Amino acid sequence: MPHRRTAFFISDRTGITAEMLGHSLLTQFEGIEFKRVTLPFIDSPEKAAQVAERIRQTAEQDQIRPLVFSTIVNEAIRHLIHIDCALTLDFFEVFISPLEAELAMESSHTVGRSHGIQNFQEYNQRIEAVNYAMSHDDGMKPDLAEADIILVGVSRSGKTPTCLYLALQYGIKAANYPLTPEDFGKPTLPKLLHPYKHKLFGLTISPERLQQIRSERKPDSRYAALDTCRFEIQEAEALMRNAGVTYLNTTSKSIEELASTILHKANLARRIY
Amino acid sequence: MPHRRTAFFISDRTGITAEMLGHSLLTQFEGIEFKRVTLPFIDSPEKAAQVAERIRQTAEQDQIRPLVFSTIVNEAIRHLIHIDCALTLDFFEVFISPLEAELAMESSHTVGRSHGIQNFQEYNQRIEAVNYAMSHDDGMKPDLAEADIILVGVSRSGKTPTCLYLALQYGIKAANYPLTPEDFGKPTLPKLLHPYKHKLFGLTISPERLQQIRSERKPDSRYAALDTCRFEIQEAEALMRNAGVTYLNTTSKSIEELASTILHKANLARRIY
Repeated sequence: MPHRRTAFFISDRTGITAEMLGHSLLTQFEGIEFKRVTLPFIDSPEKAAQVAERIRQTAEQDQIRPLVFSTIVNEAIRHLIHIDCALTLDFFEVFISPLEAELAMESSHTVGRSHGIQNFQEYNQRIEAVNYAMSHDDGMKPDLAEADIILVGVSRSGKTPTCLYLALQYGIKAANYPLTPEDFGKPTLPKLLHPYKHKLFGLTISPERLQQIRSERKPDSRYAALDTCRFEIQEAEALMRNAGVTYLNTTSKSIEELASTILHKANLARRIY
Repeated sequence: MPHRRTAFFISDRTGITAEMLGHSLLTQFEGIEFKRVTLPFIDSPEKAAQVAERIRQTAEQDQIRPLVFSTIVNEAIRHLIHIDCALTLDFFEVFISPLEAELAMESSHTVGRSHGIQNFQEYNQRIEAVNYAMSHDDGMKPDLAEADIILVGVSRSGKTPTCLYLALQYGIKAANYPLTPEDFGKPTLPKLLHPYKHKLFGLTISPERLQQIRSERKPDSRYAALDTCRFEIQEAEALMRNAGVTYLNTTSKSIEELASTILHKANLARRIY
């Protein structure tokens, strides 16, 4: 019988930190099937008592202790969900005390600091970045002066999701510009991009993976054919190399890995929300 | 003199978990100015030694111990950055042992499990969700049959960033459809939406905040005038109430809070990447 466990992600706010915390740890244990349950907005003793009861019932049904990843700020509420029939890993409980000692002050114990709106100006900047990515997707608007970074690459090399992630997660104004058959065989990148060479960052991909992605959109098309993919990638890489544009292979990289690598290599500041 | 500290977020991969971990803790300490430095991809003893040296130098320059939030999986590398002149809060060190004991197995100690591509099919689903949100933004495509959820509300009430976040973070296919002056004064929501009533979720906002957001886009316009905003919001809310559509006020909610609340209230499964 495969080893199965229920994993609860419990938070007084969105649950996003609890999920990320638990997810990074659980991915280290292969061969176990985890049933994941997120319980956000547990911000009263009544809700906490209900959660404790649910954990208790799960332990009984599963006949094995559930795992509980908790990011509840309020101590009184937090303790209500600590019950013996589960393994509870509590993020604030573990880390807040050493920080309070180091910083020689008490923490504010205020719920909803992280992932809330603390500052409308910062928040507007983030929304502006999202709007920018939307309106400067796929070369739609040729005015790239305001961009923090401009991703270039063949169609379906991963430019759009990466730009959106850079905007949402880091407030970066990321435009993207496709390299298309019109651009190939020429000695330089499209003229429009010349003034912004220092902002360019390239994405490339393996022909096989590109074929697979394009085939899902346009099956059996010239666009998705392996030789088309191979030709376009080869030409796009040549253009980028000639222009001295750094490029990354996206084939086996997630959006997070792409975004983080680009920020790192392009030396862009990470705003953290 | 204000209390200042350098906070390092150090990871063998993207640094996103370390940043989120550190950020949620640091927001609990008000009045301290934190200089945040993310150091991703610290995956060799050589890089770890460089990081340790950088922490040492920072401690000397700041004349106070830096804070280090680390999510390094490999123990040997992890220990190289643990130095006495900093407070190091180490995520894997603290949580992996109790999990190993509970699950009665050793963790795989594999770098890059979280935020990597583990499964192309899951990953394709996520990218498909992003493409879906892009192509079904602002009522662009009227075919809404595939949507997991459809956000409705007046222009600039927060629909687009919320849809993109739902897609990127949770792989949810989220469309959005604007309620515009053409729709007001009628007894029901636009006809196009009738078949999908069970998928509708409303966003509303305060007139003052809407005026501020619209004014940044189109200053001194009729569109941004306070009485226009007030009228549109009142009419949109009446339409949503009449149709029995749940709606949320976005005025002081972050994208994360909106997304998490919507998933929770609409009872949608959270896929975790």
